[in-house]
Parts: sequence; structure tokens; C-alpha cells
Amino acid sequence: MGGDFGPRVTVPAALQALALNPSLYLLLVGQTEAITPLLINADPSLLPRLEIIHSDDVIANDAKPSQAIRNSRSTSMREALDLVKNGQAGACVSAGNTGALMGLSKMMLKPLPGIERPALASALPNQQQGRTLVLDLGANVECDSNMLVQFAIMGSVMAEEVLEIPQPRVALLNIGEEENKGLDNIREASAILKETLAINYIGYLEGNDLLTGKTDVLVCDGFVGNVTLKTLEGVIRMFLLLLKTPNGEKKRAWWLRLLGRWLQKKFAKRFGHLNPDQYNGACLLGLRGIVIKSHGSANQNAFAVAIEQAVQAVRRQVPTRIASRLEAVLPKSD
Amino acid sequence: MGGDFGPRVTVPAALQALALNPSLYLLLVGQTEAITPLLINADPSLLPRLEIIHSDDVIANDAKPSQAIRNSRSTSMREALDLVKNGQAGACVSAGNTGALMGLSKMMLKPLPGIERPALASALPNQQQGRTLVLDLGANVECDSNMLVQFAIMGSVMAEEVLEIPQPRVALLNIGEEENKGLDNIREASAILKETLAINYIGYLEGNDLLTGKTDVLVCDGFVGNVTLKTLEGVIRMFLLLLKTPNGEKKRAWWLRLLGRWLQKKFAKRFGHLNPDQYNGACLLGLRGIVIKSHGSANQNAFAVAIEQAVQAVRRQVPTRIASRLEAVLPKSD
Repeated sequence: MGGDFGPRVTVPAALQALALNPSLYLLLVGQTEAITPLLINADPSLLPRLEIIHSDDVIANDAKPSQAIRNSRSTSMREALDLVKNGQAGACVSAGNTGALMGLSKMMLKPLPGIERPALASALPNQQQGRTLVLDLGANVECDSNMLVQFAIMGSVMAEEVLEIPQPRVALLNIGEEENKGLDNIREASAILKETLAINYIGYLEGNDLLTGKTDVLVCDGFVGNVTLKTLEGVIRMFLLLLKTPNGEKKRAWWLRLLGRWLQKKFAKRFGHLNPDQYNGACLLGLRGIVIKSHGSANQNAFAVAIEQAVQAVRRQVPTRIASRLEAVLPKSD
Repeated sequence: MGGDFGPRVTVPAALQALALNPSLYLLLVGQTEAITPLLINADPSLLPRLEIIHSDDVIANDAKPSQAIRNSRSTSMREALDLVKNGQAGACVSAGNTGALMGLSKMMLKPLPGIERPALASALPNQQQGRTLVLDLGANVECDSNMLVQFAIMGSVMAEEVLEIPQPRVALLNIGEEENKGLDNIREASAILKETLAINYIGYLEGNDLLTGKTDVLVCDGFVGNVTLKTLEGVIRMFLLLLKTPNGEKKRAWWLRLLGRWLQKKFAKRFGHLNPDQYNGACLLGLRGIVIKSHGSANQNAFAVAIEQAVQAVRRQVPTRIASRLEAVLPKSD
């Protein structure tokens, strides 16, 4: 159990998720001595659906992925992925080291046929009351055109099968909408996607279209995706904070202050769906098993949301559905 | 006079800027027949400080920069840069094709000694009531480590000389704060900056720190910078729009509606400094002349802000100050 806060966030989040999902059974992989004390005050009726799988070590957040993977034998991340590989668990949820999770998942669960590298995907709320699936959010810092095309295909299948959007629109994130804009890999991917008839490719979109709902799937490399997502979250958190903070209220009459607070609450509610905690948990798409990456800094609510994402992915059998569709959609040359 | 809207935005913006700055003299470079009708209702007292320089052609927004530069002879962008080159104008403000403006500026005004490529820089408002200078915002889609180092140095000098921040903190935008994160060029730039004693280099920051004020200068390549800035602007515009939009107001009593609107206005005012129109205009740093790039989609107010940025840059003699500091700061090996 990694992440920035370890079991003291993930264990209460696990209990919260168990209370919400009567059919959920959770295996907590980590140091028993760190987990047990956190269960003392838990609702006893939840405990039969919870099991501790002891593991001695944790992969450090700042560990170099390649080294971490080599020395991963007795770590909780590896144990958890082993449970998925052996069919003892339906999904693995982790707030740990992204690079190590990506590498270990790929090594242990293997990519789907035709997929070189899995990608982190998250469905962000958009202005049209819908969702836009964005990938890659940080699994691959460098991507060639083929990887971008594979991300586009996986994203399209996931949007159709999981978000239930028929013929989802797919766009590439770029610095302009004109043909000649951007980097070579993006322009090459665009040319390939134009020829890929199974994909409803609509061209380039820019950063300001991330939340407008102009597309159902937005594809970029993991470096740009990670920076973009974090920028988005940073701005939203700042706005939510500013909305909550009183501003020179003392000068106002008591009834104005009360009304102000009431209105602030209304606003906070209105913007609530944009709160990054509400969509925490990115799916590592393109593997033969389900792996959900939570923010390292996730709080209890946010980590519970990530567990819920795993529940949904298991229910909808995401890898099986993607695999069965990929065969028809992937370019035959691969 | 390019940009998405041409003279019908830039001419009224020019009049607005003239009214604000009694010492400003503007040369409007473009098609006389398009500009003149827009001056009919102008305040006659402003007209003596305004001159139309006729040019037949405009560089199209979607033109490929290399081609546009080759065929630029009679375009307004080239004419305007010529005026700067010949000392007839102190600065050029354009809402046109970014790539062409970058290329033409470099060709005509020449980079400062030791600078390979100019970068687009903008001072964004941050949570600490200060400003964070971000560059490159789109002039160079691909950057090697040396370019990033030069951007860091130019940014540091500009923050010190123009934003008046002593020993400005400089950070590189990355996908994590640990040493081993990110792309090779960023890690290499980080290693060089650590050895550059004249720069107060503080390491990596992530996208969520764009507005927190943890740094005074944030450096990235032009692709990431452009996507990040546009993401930021998109989210802020969406928030400002949601703040303004009434939400099921009809059900409320009239006095609640009135109060609600009053409070909404208060909120809008509070977030007003974040409105992208308020900081429109990125400075093309690293040239021997002053070039300000406005958003192509700038409205009248936003374009007037870009003109004001040019006024400030001229007053503070940005290129001269940067040049005189660069000599001391740039690594001697260059």
C-alpha cells in the first residue's frame, strides 16, 4: 500500500468502498502491522469482506521504475498484481509509483494482442454534461505515431463499450487545428487515423477544448497528458478553494454574510462534479487485466472513487471487451 | 492586421489603447480600405497619434510558416517588423500566425548574442498575488536541453528586470519532482541549470503548480507550454461562464434573484484577474527588438492589453536589459 499517505488513507477508503458496494470483496496487500490498527473502529459487518495479504516491502514513490521492478519481489504492488494474474482478484488499485506500476503491470499481466504499450486513461467531466476520455495521462512519456494510433483505438473502444457512446469522436491533442501543426509523431498518427475507417477521427483539438465536449476521446503522449491533467486539476482546485474562502466578510451585515455563504454552497455544488477527487483513478488500458492508478496524493474519498472505478471496470469486463473489438479495428499490418 | 477577426477588433483596440496612453503613437499596418471605415466614429483627438501604413497582403492563419515567410514581402506582418527593424516603431504587436511571426521576427530582428531561438513568454497571475513567467508558450515545438537552459536564463532576467523580482526562482515543468522523471532534454537542462550559479534554479514543478506561485519562472518546450496555457485558459473561461450563467433562477423570489446576481458579480470580480483577456500578449523574448504575440482570437479588450504589454516592454527596454544581463549569465562555453 503505497501512495503519499499509505494505509492511513487507503484502509479507510477501502472500508468506505465496502460499505457502498455490498458485493465487493477487498484484499488489502501491505504490512499487516500497519493495516490492522486502522481496522479497530471499523464496522464489524464489513470485515468478513476484507482480507489482509501481508507483504513486507513497498516500492518508493521516487524509486526509478527499472530498478524498482528488478527489486519488486516482496513488494505490495507486485503481490497485488500477482493476485490479478492468478485470478484471485478482479482488479488492482494502486496509488503508488506510476512508472513501476506501468512496468510491472505490463510484465505480469501482458499487453493485449496488437498493443505495444498500455496507456493511462481517465474519463473527465465535460461542459456538455458528458465525459471525455483522455489518454495517455502519464504511462508513456515518449510516444511514436503507432502508439498514438493504438491509444486512439483503445480509447474509442472504451468510450463505446464503457461510456456507452456510439461511434465516439476521437481527436489528437495538438497546438492548432491546421494540418501542418505540431510534432511529427502527431501528424503521422493523424494521417494513419484518417485511413482507419473503424475510428470516427475528427482531427486535432487544442488544450482549451479539453472540457468543451467537442470530442469523446482525446489522445496525446503521456508527458503532455500528465502535465495537462495536473494543470487542469490545479486550476479547478484553486477555483474551488477561492469559492469557499470568505472575502472581507466582516464588513457585511449578518444576513448578507449568510446569503453569501448559501450562494457559495450553491456554487460549490454546481462545480462539484469538476472536483478532481470525483474522477480519481485512471485505467491502465491495453492489458489483459484491470489496473487502476489512483493519484498518489488521493484523500480517502478520492481513493474510494478509484476503487469504484475498478468495480465498474470488472463489471464491464473492460479488457475482454477491448480485446474482442481490437481485433476488428486494429490495422491488419500490425 | 491578421488574427481571427482582423481590423474590426484590432482598430477599436488601438483606439482604446491610445485613449489610455497619452504618450502612445500607433502605426496601423494593413489594408487602408479595411482600416479607414473603422475610424469614422473615432474620437478625433486620438487621430493625430495614429497613422495607417498600407500593406496589400496578410499572412493566413493556417499558412505553413516556412512558405509564409518566403512569400511575406508585401504582408502587414513583415511591414510591421520592418518598422521595428528600422527604428520607426518601438514594438510590433500581432494577432497573426505564430509560426510565421516567430520565423519572420528571428529573420528580421535577429536573436540576441548567445540565444539560438526566441521564446514566447507570458506572466500569468498566481495565487500568491504575484506573477509567474511561463515560457516557451509555443514558439518552438521541439527544444533541446540548451534551448531550455537559454529560456530559463532569459526568463530569470525578465522576471528580475521587468517583474522586479529579486533572485527569481526558476523551475522546469515536468511530470514529477524526482530527479529521474521526464524526458532526456529536461533532465539534461536540469543538470546544466544546477551548475549555473547566476540562476536561482529550484528544480522540477508539475502542472498543478502553474498558478500556486511556487516559482517565479516556469520553463518548458513550446508544445507543452502551448497546450498547458490553452488548457488553463479553457478551464478559467468555463468557470467564469458558469459563474455568470443563471441556474434555475425563475423559481426564486425577485429579491433573492437580485442578491444572487449581486453576489455573482462580486465573485466574477474576485476571479477577474484570472480572466485570460487580462494577460493577453506574450513577449517574444530573445530578440533585438520587441514583438508581442496576441491571441488570434483576442477581443478588443484583450488586444488592447497586448498593446499595453508592448508599451511596458518599450518603457522597460526589455531587449537591452536582457542583452546586458545575458552576457554575465550565459555559460561561457556558448
